Amino acid sequence: MSNDPIALNQALASFDALWSPRIVTRVNDYDVRVAKVEGEHVWHVHDHTDEFFLVLDGELDIALRESGGERTVTLATGSVFTVPRGTEHKPSSPSGASILVFEPTGTLTVGDRHEEVPAHVDATTGHAL
Amino acid sequence: MSNDPIALNQALASFDALWSPRIVTRVNDYDVRVAKVEGEHVWHVHDHTDEFFLVLDGELDIALRESGGERTVTLATGSVFTVPRGTEHKPSSPSGASILVFEPTGTLTVGDRHEEVPAHVDATTGHAL
Repeated sequence: MSNDPIALNQALASFDALWSPRIVTRVNDYDVRVAKVEGEHVWHVHDHTDEFFLVLDGELDIALRESGGERTVTLATGSVFTVPRGTEHKPSSPSGASILVFEPTGTLTVGDRHEEVPAHVDATTGHAL
Repeated sequence: MSNDPIALNQALASFDALWSPRIVTRVNDYDVRVAKVEGEHVWHVHDHTDEFFLVLDGELDIALRESGGERTVTLATGSVFTVPRGTEHKPSSPSGASILVFEPTGTLTVGDRHEEVPAHVDATTGHAL
């Protein structure tokens, strides 16, 4: 299998599905995934792993249920944020965004526990490019 | 400790040192680091871990010594590449770049084995922002 650089804008141009991550490369037992998002994801939690977000384009909101209460962080293009393991969170993007996430291979997009998953959200461990 | 989004361009504006990564966030037992680079790094190898590169700005070359011989991959802005564990490599950037790397916490910039480290290369496991 060849190992060549991947242009993220070309990777993103190769699919249209929202909330449906593509795996662009692996790092040990972690995935680097990219996704197009717009509208609302679901409240969910990863009990055993942190989850890293980088916004490549657009703006992403992440609502968080923390011990002190609920808040929403907003990530502009070029911003990063790590959701700690065990923290319920709900990503959303009213006007759309492209994002990159790092997380262990096999991590499900809807976590270990989640509210009902609507049709527009892909419950997946990531698809091949 | 507060956990808020970090704008990578602000993180990069906070230091000038070349080849001297700053840790912007942690994901489980991995670091997300950013660095400014220009000129040549050194040939080195990480025996036990892959190393992920994303070019945030500029262009990065990575020379690789693979079983089939030596080649150089070039990453434009917005491109990613994973150097497999055990592969000798030498990053360089004639005209300069800003990069993001993802690797296990404690990973040394010059790897487990390396050629002599010149003064302009920081042998470090990453600095706090």
